[in-house]
Amino acid sequence: MNVLSLIRRKRDGETLSGDEIRALVAAYTRDEVPDYQMAAFLMAGFIRGFVDAEAFALYEAMLHSGEVLDLRDIPGIKVDKHSTGGVGDKLSLILAPVAAACGVPVPMISGRGLGHSGGTLDKLESIPGFNVNLDLDRYRRVLAEHRMVLIGQTETIAPADKRLYALRDVTATVECIPYIAASIMSKKMAEGIDALVLDVKVGNGAFMRTEADARRLAERLVAIGTAAGKPTIAYLTDMDTPLGHAIGNWIEVEESLAVLAGGGPADVRELSLLLAGTMIYLGGQAESVEAGIALGARAIEDGSALQAFIGLAAAQDADITCLLHPERYPQAPHQLVVAADRDGWITGMDTFAIGMAAVELGAGRLRKEDRIDPVAGIRLQAKTGDHVKAGQPLAVLLGSDAERTRAQVGAVAAAYRFGDRAPEPKPLVLGRIDPILGGNPLE
Amino acid sequence: MNVLSLIRRKRDGETLSGDEIRALVAAYTRDEVPDYQMAAFLMAGFIRGFVDAEAFALYEAMLHSGEVLDLRDIPGIKVDKHSTGGVGDKLSLILAPVAAACGVPVPMISGRGLGHSGGTLDKLESIPGFNVNLDLDRYRRVLAEHRMVLIGQTETIAPADKRLYALRDVTATVECIPYIAASIMSKKMAEGIDALVLDVKVGNGAFMRTEADARRLAERLVAIGTAAGKPTIAYLTDMDTPLGHAIGNWIEVEESLAVLAGGGPADVRELSLLLAGTMIYLGGQAESVEAGIALGARAIEDGSALQAFIGLAAAQDADITCLLHPERYPQAPHQLVVAADRDGWITGMDTFAIGMAAVELGAGRLRKEDRIDPVAGIRLQAKTGDHVKAGQPLAVLLGSDAERTRAQVGAVAAAYRFGDRAPEPKPLVLGRIDPILGGNPLE
Repeated sequence: MNVLSLIRRKRDGETLSGDEIRALVAAYTRDEVPDYQMAAFLMAGFIRGFVDAEAFALYEAMLHSGEVLDLRDIPGIKVDKHSTGGVGDKLSLILAPVAAACGVPVPMISGRGLGHSGGTLDKLESIPGFNVNLDLDRYRRVLAEHRMVLIGQTETIAPADKRLYALRDVTATVECIPYIAASIMSKKMAEGIDALVLDVKVGNGAFMRTEADARRLAERLVAIGTAAGKPTIAYLTDMDTPLGHAIGNWIEVEESLAVLAGGGPADVRELSLLLAGTMIYLGGQAESVEAGIALGARAIEDGSALQAFIGLAAAQDADITCLLHPERYPQAPHQLVVAADRDGWITGMDTFAIGMAAVELGAGRLRKEDRIDPVAGIRLQAKTGDHVKAGQPLAVLLGSDAERTRAQVGAVAAAYRFGDRAPEPKPLVLGRIDPILGGNPLE
Repeated sequence: MNVLSLIRRKRDGETLSGDEIRALVAAYTRDEVPDYQMAAFLMAGFIRGFVDAEAFALYEAMLHSGEVLDLRDIPGIKVDKHSTGGVGDKLSLILAPVAAACGVPVPMISGRGLGHSGGTLDKLESIPGFNVNLDLDRYRRVLAEHRMVLIGQTETIAPADKRLYALRDVTATVECIPYIAASIMSKKMAEGIDALVLDVKVGNGAFMRTEADARRLAERLVAIGTAAGKPTIAYLTDMDTPLGHAIGNWIEVEESLAVLAGGGPADVRELSLLLAGTMIYLGGQAESVEAGIALGARAIEDGSALQAFIGLAAAQDADITCLLHPERYPQAPHQLVVAADRDGWITGMDTFAIGMAAVELGAGRLRKEDRIDPVAGIRLQAKTGDHVKAGQPLAVLLGSDAERTRAQVGAVAAAYRFGDRAPEPKPLVLGRIDPILGGNPLE
């Protein structure tokens, strides 16, 4: 392989063969291609783009840079969900036990918070003792016994993605759909799943700000899943407003428990059931997504989904007292109300700013080495579409440090936009990309 | 300065400010920007391009990365020439003494052979003792006394160019006109010159293969020189055929001596006089280029140009015996004739292949650490436009190693193209880019 010639050809807008792309990524992973050459290639590819076959080869190269789990000895169609990340997105904590309770094995490898967006692992770790670092043997055993398992990325899965992501991060080549798609799909497919549901977030709290970008990403993700022989369905969902009322770690677990107990905010319930229903359908436990949703709703009603979550937490070393008695969990020592300074309709929210405020309060990391404060976060009291009166609370800021908590009042207040008329209601689900039920995006 | 944001904006095709480009290059030169970020920037700029002001800022940043000589205390308008490189291009050895003999100070910092093309320094060093590594004090003194000086690149001149060139070489970002122009002009302007003549080669023995590319480069070079306040004239000249008959090091010095003595090949004589005449004009010693050419021709006729060259060589530590008696210089021990295998007209030559054959014979370097063989090279006996009979010599290969010399016979024979009719004669000079005499390329 002549690295310079591959860089030159991509620079000039040529299409590379799958073998060439696989060889390049493999050589980079083996440290045979220096960072500066890969940086030049990544930039050329960012600007010139990749055809479907090249994007698929990128995904394959990253997938095969590490271990690909084989879960065929575990019965059932294994289904996972991936979200591109948002604010208040605790759906994994709900849909995994719902799908598992309906007979679908869910082997889930999740991430930590990134930038302004939260991460499933950080939320799980707010449950005392919850162990997200199971080795792969135990991962299998928990999955076989509980039909679900929730762990973090291991060193052996898609190591090329880890290196490439770090390089993209410092060379302004992050926001490139073929790279994002290969990164997501290589990690998910390495889990050994049979089918996948994708939640591609769109809006001012998402990494994809426009519906057009989100749709292109969703189409690419579904195309890769389909080409890999794994049925894949993607939804485009709204992230112009945080999901639910809780933004943080423990308080998102608490809100998830409420939904699993049959309550909780309507948007969280609706989206959890849609995604869980789709997983139940893909997992062969329902004839349609609608039938899957109905099954999922029943698993919430009869308590089996909540039971599945608590059983899993126990299996992953958690002290389940706080799950059974959430009211006993410690409260944030500093709680500050952000109040409306006028009467009016909330016409919009700067969701990114709210996510960043939660990070500043301690719910996320500003530096890699920061520790998460499990009780920190924001409880929204009013969201887009609500009408408020001056002085009425918009949000409660939760923190462990008085100064740090106070410092976020202005940012959160400024994140609310007001108007004199109710805003047009926006749908939660903006679209579905689906090569099984709908048109094939590869055509 | 936020490097990531500069990379991102160039990636997205935005125009950066001169200050931003200068800050980036300065930070890279100070080792504050890693190679992988600069590689991503270079690739983004390669693909997206640069407007005039950005290209000028690149040049300025590279110029000011090191020492800029101030020769104002030396009387006269200092003029230099730069060639973009070709095969058999020994013009510097002729035009510098011609211009100096006509009263124009020529402070020339030259390069070594690169790829298939020869370098002035390597040719000078075939003269025993010739010292091209003068310190800057001695550079000034020789220039003041001899009105010319010929040295190599120093560590203190345009260090950013050295680092950037090495990075471009390994990231497929070499063939980019703004980068090439900034590289050439930063080194030339750091010499402390007042005006510049450029010889931009076009053809199968040049780095610019097409006239369009060569013209774009020439226009960019003249634009930078003009914006820097240094009158600059560029010629586009033919490099589809080697210049003169000698390709190598000592044999090119020998051919230069022949031209300085009033003989030598017509193409070398014509082009040397055109470029020298332009230098004499820019140096204020003639009213027009034509008058400059006439003055230059007289300096050859009356022997003053040859005397200037010999005087300079002595001043730069050379043993001038071989210049006074070229016939006493050692001969290459292996001399092999390449003969025509048919009757016919020579309709063209693969000049790149001939240059590479000379390198293989020892006249250039295949690896950085290779030593030049001063007697190695090729003496052309027939060139494009000549008619030959089968068996008649086309070229004589000169080498110090029998095996290595024999190995090039096939390549040189194959570099000649034959036809049954005389080819259309091609002009030696294809164009002139000149903001003084002609149109301003900045407009």
